[in-house]
Amino acid sequence: MHVLFACPHNNPADWLPGLTAELPDCKISVWDPAGPPSGADVALVWKPPAALIEHETRLKALFNLGAGVDALLQMNLPAHIQIVRLEDAGMAVQMAEYALYALLRAARGFGRYEDDQAASRWAPQPGLRREQWPVGVLGLGEMGGRVAQAIAAFDYPVLGWSRSPRTVEGIQTYAGAEQLPEFLRRTRVLVNVLPLTPETTGLLDREFLSQLLPGGHLINVGRGGHLNEPDLLALLDEGKIDGATLDVFDVEPLPAGHPFWTHPRVHVTPHIAASTLRSEAISQIAAKIRRLARGEPISGVVAPQRGY
Amino acid sequence: MHVLFACPHNNPADWLPGLTAELPDCKISVWDPAGPPSGADVALVWKPPAALIEHETRLKALFNLGAGVDALLQMNLPAHIQIVRLEDAGMAVQMAEYALYALLRAARGFGRYEDDQAASRWAPQPGLRREQWPVGVLGLGEMGGRVAQAIAAFDYPVLGWSRSPRTVEGIQTYAGAEQLPEFLRRTRVLVNVLPLTPETTGLLDREFLSQLLPGGHLINVGRGGHLNEPDLLALLDEGKIDGATLDVFDVEPLPAGHPFWTHPRVHVTPHIAASTLRSEAISQIAAKIRRLARGEPISGVVAPQRGY
Repeated sequence: MHVLFACPHNNPADWLPGLTAELPDCKISVWDPAGPPSGADVALVWKPPAALIEHETRLKALFNLGAGVDALLQMNLPAHIQIVRLEDAGMAVQMAEYALYALLRAARGFGRYEDDQAASRWAPQPGLRREQWPVGVLGLGEMGGRVAQAIAAFDYPVLGWSRSPRTVEGIQTYAGAEQLPEFLRRTRVLVNVLPLTPETTGLLDREFLSQLLPGGHLINVGRGGHLNEPDLLALLDEGKIDGATLDVFDVEPLPAGHPFWTHPRVHVTPHIAASTLRSEAISQIAAKIRRLARGEPISGVVAPQRGY
Repeated sequence: MHVLFACPHNNPADWLPGLTAELPDCKISVWDPAGPPSGADVALVWKPPAALIEHETRLKALFNLGAGVDALLQMNLPAHIQIVRLEDAGMAVQMAEYALYALLRAARGFGRYEDDQAASRWAPQPGLRREQWPVGVLGLGEMGGRVAQAIAAFDYPVLGWSRSPRTVEGIQTYAGAEQLPEFLRRTRVLVNVLPLTPETTGLLDREFLSQLLPGGHLINVGRGGHLNEPDLLALLDEGKIDGATLDVFDVEPLPAGHPFWTHPRVHVTPHIAASTLRSEAISQIAAKIRRLARGEPISGVVAPQRGY
């Protein structure tokens, strides 16, 4: 098996020693767009240029160094090329802590206490009642399931929604379009962990977000493409949503002058909710390449028509 | 059984209906310092004046509306009066989320991202390695045990220290004075959840905090009296401690002009880490009063010589 490292944004020196150690029987090389085709069978990719596919015509599988494969699917790859997404690899726990941090900042008023400190003001607020802060998690895959359970462990009521029915211990789950309105009507803090697909693009718009309970808060750790940004700004300004914690945006980096930067009730982070942990990613991908080499099936293969 | 409500800082109207409903066989009255002694057998108290004990000479037990009984013990009550502390009643989960919030703010750099947003700066930092953020929890009672397990659920290495040996699933525990140096040497983020006793007063001083790993962070949700405040300020300014998140202080409210208010690496909150939840407190105390009325033993009785 010949493995190609084709991640123009990552330094091969950080990755090749680990890959070589895990795959002693494989040839491992770095993609050279200016050189002759390498003839590699599989490639590790992250935001690869379209030229990779035209150039490396023997590729049968692309291992994405992230969980979201929306960018790869938009490349309209030939049908014989499998896309394999990264499964967890330390990302789910990071998503869970991001969501919990954002929830606590809103529900426990930590943002307000920061303002109070800046004014040297001692102003304790009454404790919260957890039953007034139901949290709804959109998406119940590896990421969403862990997010939901992490929040439930702190005694908040947690609801979950997914496209097809799922069971998550301790979580009230809803599925499909017909159960979405009820899920939204019972949710105050909405955590979006969906994959970006044609179906979910622009899903978080005025109509959708208006259905949340009063005092609602949006936590977006999915993709910027899920959210209609002008709709969110309008709902915030109309008082129909209380606040938002956003890690992903339509355009990244978030452009200078974008109203989110200075909005008093929008909390911006630079797409850091979950970063790929190199050593875990290498181990996981190498294990799958060894299985492929033995002709065995692997998990995490993307269904293009489904979008994840 | 005659129950006296003696909490000058709380509104009896918030408490009496619940107590009456839970204790239909008891007489329930509100302490009147100006009137004749009520003859009550037990009292619910929170920061009572010393006059209560002189006035209500038949009291046999004081139910404290909080977990920390240091203020009551300082009153030098007659030996025949039992002090009963509030056990959990929704406080442990609040402590756990406070500690987790403070940990994430330090370890995941959320404080830095707030500064970045204020400057409209998109500056993602590399992901953290959890093994570089060992968290040590001082105190492994109901509060500390839950704090330790909540943090361990997010895959941080967690150590715990208590006066006498304790076992907490998933936590490496240390006990007694002789194991304290090793606990501190392996701890980067220190969470103090100890009760305040003569032994622990001033424990968090220069010598103690200097033993933490480099890049250390102190989270104090115990009592202000645990911390030598000038020592912490000196260690922060010398770079021997990276930051602190403080909910409790020597003098509360934290006085205007105190250097903590404006220190860039001290995060101040106004003693809100865990607040008593009224309905849970009422249920718990009423259940104990019913047991006392039947002559049965109760949990949560304070050992004055131990201090908690």
